[in-house]
Amino acid sequence: MRFIIPFEGREPKTRLGDTLSLTERQAFARAMLRDVLIAVRDAGHDPVIVSPSPLDIETPTIVDDSPLSEAINSTLSTAVLPVAVVMADLPLVTPSTLGQFLETPGDVVLAPGIGGGTNALVVRDSAFSVDYHGTSYLDHLDIAQEAGLTVSEAGPWRLAVDVDEPSDLTEILLHSDGHAHEWLVEHGFSLETTSGRTNTTRARRTSSLPGGPSG
Amino acid sequence: MRFIIPFEGREPKTRLGDTLSLTERQAFARAMLRDVLIAVRDAGHDPVIVSPSPLDIETPTIVDDSPLSEAINSTLSTAVLPVAVVMADLPLVTPSTLGQFLETPGDVVLAPGIGGGTNALVVRDSAFSVDYHGTSYLDHLDIAQEAGLTVSEAGPWRLAVDVDEPSDLTEILLHSDGHAHEWLVEHGFSLETTSGRTNTTRARRTSSLPGGPSG
Repeated sequence: MRFIIPFEGREPKTRLGDTLSLTERQAFARAMLRDVLIAVRDAGHDPVIVSPSPLDIETPTIVDDSPLSEAINSTLSTAVLPVAVVMADLPLVTPSTLGQFLETPGDVVLAPGIGGGTNALVVRDSAFSVDYHGTSYLDHLDIAQEAGLTVSEAGPWRLAVDVDEPSDLTEILLHSDGHAHEWLVEHGFSLETTSGRTNTTRARRTSSLPGGPSG
Repeated sequence: MRFIIPFEGREPKTRLGDTLSLTERQAFARAMLRDVLIAVRDAGHDPVIVSPSPLDIETPTIVDDSPLSEAINSTLSTAVLPVAVVMADLPLVTPSTLGQFLETPGDVVLAPGIGGGTNALVVRDSAFSVDYHGTSYLDHLDIAQEAGLTVSEAGPWRLAVDVDEPSDLTEILLHSDGHAHEWLVEHGFSLETTSGRTNTTRARRTSSLPGGPSG
């Protein structure tokens, strides 16, 4: 099945701006994208990237510099259904996660992201369109319901964890062993156990590998 | 099946201390507990609360003021297996979530929480014990593996979202319609859409109901 993966590679992950430099964010976003592409291919599906700028990557890429929702709706309008749209900042996904996701019934399947976003969706009816602005999960529910479509919630937590904020890096160190994990470890990040949630800490200016999880 | 639900009702949810007063945190923690108890009963299971102090509640309660892990291990040691341990701050859980959780195979099933915790677990072998201190998800993996037990990860995102931090309140407003949701709305909380994740805002000193979601 076709998987559409939006990716913005020039100024990605701005909310990690206090933690990573622009060059680092570009490399880290690429590492997460790579993890998502591997999961999609290992699950037996065909990824296509939608990007506002050309990418030097061996995956079919539609270059479209319109706003995100417009670019995705344009791609959806010419795609053979069903089709999935999966964000590029989900480095926890596995082929098994995607399998469960695709088994969920419904004209539209929505995978909520922490904080009101829509991390992934399956479209099985052409009456649906996307709107990623604002609290997109609620907007997508509305769009589906107004079009008279059945809509289901996708359950896997590995789809719910997108990486936007520094605290999200912890989930990668805990629950993934892919390229994004490797990139973080190589750049000095490790787990730090506090009294509350486990945090991520960075060894500054180190060129050696940091130790393993502290907790 | 027996569900053990740890609950600390006197000084609960300290990380919400900037957002809610002590009295409010006590009431809000009770509302979340109520949602979890309803989901467990609606799924056909028998909840028992483990609490360091007596509770005025119509659910069987084991009062044990030892530290959390000790109290749970003591309860586990006399329970007929399999048994589940589910945290009381998971107001997004539904009977269907719990059904998927219990279908997961393994001597031990672990449901990761955001930030390294263990939000729920199923124990099917008496060689397992809990340790909730620190990054408990990794500790529980170690304990199971050292005991030679098979261990699986539970997938549902509704088990992964525990409510500790102010930003977690957003998930309740977005994805639940239970007592915790009702309590938040009655106390002035509503959704606020920003450029990033959707936040929760509180109308100060209002006695009327706030408006619906803004995004």
